[in-house]
Amino acid sequence: MKPMKISEAVVRRLPVYLQVLNDLHMRDVQTVSSQELGNRLDLNPAQIRKDLAYFGDFGRKGIGYDVTYLIEKIKQILKLDQPLNVALVGAGNLGRALCNYNMYLKDNMKITAVFDVHPSMIGTSINGLTVLPMEKLAETIRELRIRIGIITVPAVEAQNVADQFVEAGVDGILNFAPTILRLQDQVRIHYANFTTELMSLAYYLNEEEENDDESDLD
Amino acid sequence: MKPMKISEAVVRRLPVYLQVLNDLHMRDVQTVSSQELGNRLDLNPAQIRKDLAYFGDFGRKGIGYDVTYLIEKIKQILKLDQPLNVALVGAGNLGRALCNYNMYLKDNMKITAVFDVHPSMIGTSINGLTVLPMEKLAETIRELRIRIGIITVPAVEAQNVADQFVEAGVDGILNFAPTILRLQDQVRIHYANFTTELMSLAYYLNEEEENDDESDLD
Repeated sequence: MKPMKISEAVVRRLPVYLQVLNDLHMRDVQTVSSQELGNRLDLNPAQIRKDLAYFGDFGRKGIGYDVTYLIEKIKQILKLDQPLNVALVGAGNLGRALCNYNMYLKDNMKITAVFDVHPSMIGTSINGLTVLPMEKLAETIRELRIRIGIITVPAVEAQNVADQFVEAGVDGILNFAPTILRLQDQVRIHYANFTTELMSLAYYLNEEEENDDESDLD
Repeated sequence: MKPMKISEAVVRRLPVYLQVLNDLHMRDVQTVSSQELGNRLDLNPAQIRKDLAYFGDFGRKGIGYDVTYLIEKIKQILKLDQPLNVALVGAGNLGRALCNYNMYLKDNMKITAVFDVHPSMIGTSINGLTVLPMEKLAETIRELRIRIGIITVPAVEAQNVADQFVEAGVDGILNFAPTILRLQDQVRIHYANFTTELMSLAYYLNEEEENDDESDLD
């Protein structure tokens, strides 16, 4: 089966839909309308219907979407219906925090190996995973068929770690280091940079403050 | 001065431009072309020229953009040319990691207060900041004129913390807990959820693998 082409914006919204749907499912909710999803996600219901219509018409007028069915369908589209192993390099505070998030990566997606360069870290345990030395990276990635590498090392070391990940055969990288990586095109890179999130948030705040000032003058 | 209306997509790219420009500036690079910026950011140079043209025509044909001028201009647009104090609730691994990122939040944006509910955390020091009890949240936010709250508590506690932030007067929240918050409309919420990043990354990986399979059959 040829994979469907879905716009990047929709691909980025699907995991958020999944999160809300999982939450509804845990609370035994069986159907949900686009209106309710819209309220929870601060999205226009029409946008939600449009996004979900990409994958076939599985909402029913007046009844809404079947939560379980929609969960299965979205997992299938994201290809989360098959195991996906993830490795992480950098067992500092951030790396440890992400390993502890493992419980939210339900089902098939899991951090299955953790690496660090610091001798004091190696051999310690994080949420059931033993921190391995970098020398074990390539063989572990091959043995566990790891496809995604997470980088939580300082900015100056990130490119080196990314190169080692690619060399070992991962084809996706999630980079938390505040630096832009240069890699061959076949490797997909996503950035998780909280400073850029904060800065774009700042833009909206200040805008609001100016609006407040204006209304004071009325 | 009325704030310019800039599309959300552009607002989200500006901090990334700023990051690359700061990096060039540190290496004493004085001018940069849209082509070079495009290479570093994996963006079309035409897109970059279009984004930056929002704020006036400050690139010069054949010479490119003046790095220092562009940094100042983007900071001004993001309103990062004035101090912006940030508070964080949840001094676990993730919270500690973010406090240690403070050094990347150059200039005016800084985490200036950290809070936790756990008695064992309160009074400890993270990167120069003393962890305060939640009872101090409201008065600290007012005293330090804090406008953004970062949430790094477990999902079940996030809504409660968000409500306290809003009550205390912040007007922007960056939520790291894997849960959707419900707040009044005046408060801007950004989500930093690494599980959604990983899931959208998975979509692209699997797509690539299928493409590989197809080419094997040729």
